[in-house]
Amino acid sequence: MSEEVKIGIIGYGVVGSGLYQILEKNGEEIRQRVGFGVRVAKIADVDWERQRPVMPPVEMRVGDAYDLISDPEIPILVETIGGTGIALKLVRAALEAGKSIVTSNKALIAMHGEELLDIAEAKGVDLMFEGAVGGTIPIIRALKESLEANHLDTILGIVNGTTNYILTRMADEELEFSDVLADAQKLGYAEADPTDDIEGYDARNKLAILSAIGFGLRARVEDVFTEGITRITQADLKYAAQMGYVVKLLAIGRRQGSRVELHVHPTLVPKNHPLAAVRGSFNAIFVHGDGCDDVMLYGRGAGDMPTGSAVAGDVIEAARNVVGGCKGRVLCTCLAAAEPAPMDEVDTRTYLRIRVTDQPGVMGKIATALGDEGVSLASVIQLDTDGQVAEIVLVTHLCAEGRLNRALERVKALDVVEEIASRIRAMDEG
Amino acid sequence: MSEEVKIGIIGYGVVGSGLYQILEKNGEEIRQRVGFGVRVAKIADVDWERQRPVMPPVEMRVGDAYDLISDPEIPILVETIGGTGIALKLVRAALEAGKSIVTSNKALIAMHGEELLDIAEAKGVDLMFEGAVGGTIPIIRALKESLEANHLDTILGIVNGTTNYILTRMADEELEFSDVLADAQKLGYAEADPTDDIEGYDARNKLAILSAIGFGLRARVEDVFTEGITRITQADLKYAAQMGYVVKLLAIGRRQGSRVELHVHPTLVPKNHPLAAVRGSFNAIFVHGDGCDDVMLYGRGAGDMPTGSAVAGDVIEAARNVVGGCKGRVLCTCLAAAEPAPMDEVDTRTYLRIRVTDQPGVMGKIATALGDEGVSLASVIQLDTDGQVAEIVLVTHLCAEGRLNRALERVKALDVVEEIASRIRAMDEG
Repeated sequence: MSEEVKIGIIGYGVVGSGLYQILEKNGEEIRQRVGFGVRVAKIADVDWERQRPVMPPVEMRVGDAYDLISDPEIPILVETIGGTGIALKLVRAALEAGKSIVTSNKALIAMHGEELLDIAEAKGVDLMFEGAVGGTIPIIRALKESLEANHLDTILGIVNGTTNYILTRMADEELEFSDVLADAQKLGYAEADPTDDIEGYDARNKLAILSAIGFGLRARVEDVFTEGITRITQADLKYAAQMGYVVKLLAIGRRQGSRVELHVHPTLVPKNHPLAAVRGSFNAIFVHGDGCDDVMLYGRGAGDMPTGSAVAGDVIEAARNVVGGCKGRVLCTCLAAAEPAPMDEVDTRTYLRIRVTDQPGVMGKIATALGDEGVSLASVIQLDTDGQVAEIVLVTHLCAEGRLNRALERVKALDVVEEIASRIRAMDEG
Repeated sequence: MSEEVKIGIIGYGVVGSGLYQILEKNGEEIRQRVGFGVRVAKIADVDWERQRPVMPPVEMRVGDAYDLISDPEIPILVETIGGTGIALKLVRAALEAGKSIVTSNKALIAMHGEELLDIAEAKGVDLMFEGAVGGTIPIIRALKESLEANHLDTILGIVNGTTNYILTRMADEELEFSDVLADAQKLGYAEADPTDDIEGYDARNKLAILSAIGFGLRARVEDVFTEGITRITQADLKYAAQMGYVVKLLAIGRRQGSRVELHVHPTLVPKNHPLAAVRGSFNAIFVHGDGCDDVMLYGRGAGDMPTGSAVAGDVIEAARNVVGGCKGRVLCTCLAAAEPAPMDEVDTRTYLRIRVTDQPGVMGKIATALGDEGVSLASVIQLDTDGQVAEIVLVTHLCAEGRLNRALERVKALDVVEEIASRIRAMDEG
């Protein structure tokens, strides 16, 4: 029998269970392929009463994660608890104890990646986190290894499955946000507390990680401009569709000279763009570099088996490094702290839905107010008059957000303008 | 100054030049990111008279590749000559001399991968070939590392940029194959001798490699059913479009129990399928596994910089293994020789264009002849009558090729049938 590497799993929830299942199911195939076995030795969880679809044998179950951390026979631990509380303490302790760590915890890596990678480097162990961004999509390894020779200028994509699921159903079934959210919660596509997803915080964490790895510029999550999907209405989706767009929550990272712009927000995506075809809980990430040109990776962004697959890939890699005696082979790829470009200086095209008094000359006044700040219009539709109030819908040409903000102050000050009901950024097609 | 790994390049053509350029341009960024430098020390080519867009300094140029193979200061050699003649001799010699090899040579790996990987394993060095399939697309690393825990059942995609370019232009500009081919040759999108591309041999080599890596089943290229795009006509593209399809040259690998079916041929792809949106010289590869579900990777399939980017990624990985003392870390992932499923036993849907005498009852006779062998029809259009001869265009439901072949013998024997003008397989939609 060939060699075997033992691993421990900390936290037996969705991802922990997916990892356990895939390693059990394909254990023999993995052994033949990589030349040694990878075996789950212990799984730690605080609650073994709760029934999961697949339960590990009783002898594998442990209550205290420190039993795994102190086990000299287990060189690799997988953290699947999530969050930055107990997970941070345990990962820190495990790295200090010389364990290689695999995690799918995006908040942990986004907020504490630097500290943890430093410990891993000092201890000569691995810290891998493919499952933290894009579920099953091999984006981290692509950025750290395959595309490493490139100077990348753009990383953007759909990195949150819950919001993409909600936006897809809103568009397909002509439902409002709150109705789809309630149903998504019932079906398990959204958490009981969906804030992290629908407010864009989850996507923000992932974008911070992608920027650190892809650009070598480590951003603080607070520097990522973040807007969720809660204010997207059926009216906006319909107007957008009329103009040839679908609405997606995009995480966008771009180099701007020595700075980097990082923003997460609902975005109008042209219908013929490959990202427009990413539906339901799928994710997709676009990368542009000086050698590779456009590259896109697409796959399931969440779920027990898809994320379990990504984590298992990392586990096998970490095990290869244990067997080959080269732990810590690929660690931090961050060059420097990112200098964030303020959102005011980010160029975007913007969709606006403006409620106005229904009287002649309104469009002219708005166009003039925008034009006075140098904001020009790419397309305009005016619709839905009810005799008193009308809606004007327009998309601007590319302009800096700061300039648009000033222009919108002028628009709001017009006596014919009731309110700016919606403002959604649009993807730059040029 | 940190450590530096020297590499040699054998062959200074399109890929060799792309690799040299990307390592020169981004050398400093790569050094900061990976912690050591990767420097091109020598480049061997038999012809330094021919001018290329970017020429390396004279002191780097070498005429005899064995100067690189025998240089003890160069642990990594990149082979970019192509083909299985001198390239095979040199790679064999370099591996025997203990060099790690990076290559983008698909024919070499498809036909001699087993022998070369065995030498690499015996010598404890790396043999990497990301650039051999899908140009810049990180599909080999995804299969060997990221998705390694999966049991994969399907790998299919567009893996030849030349044919995709030709098919895209034929559809967009309503041109016939031979006209686009001539123009593509003028523009450099097709070789002077385009046989390898247009007959599907290049795609066949790539599919053999993907099967070996992804399924762990090593196929002989002769076992891959292969049909090129030379017989695709404007008429077929138009009929296909009418029925909601575009035509793509697909390489398709599927497990069939303990066997594997491998086939390359023009294929009708539904317009709303992501592969239908892969245009021009882009490539895309779909993978389906038990953990990851559907994954798609998309990018440029050829070109100096895109393929140079993939090769450079491998070079950096090989250099990491040199520095970390773990050469040969990820080698052969092939479990066994593939047992090929004969094409007769492969289920497909098939588009048929049949020229018939223009008289009543023809359609009934054809449908009956097909039905007698159990082949049923999914859709039928009948068009383009010129008074004497008419064309019937139809798509069958899924059936084994052998059964369809027998049915087509019956159809051909009908006195009302002039000829079966076209037969194109269609993607199974579910």
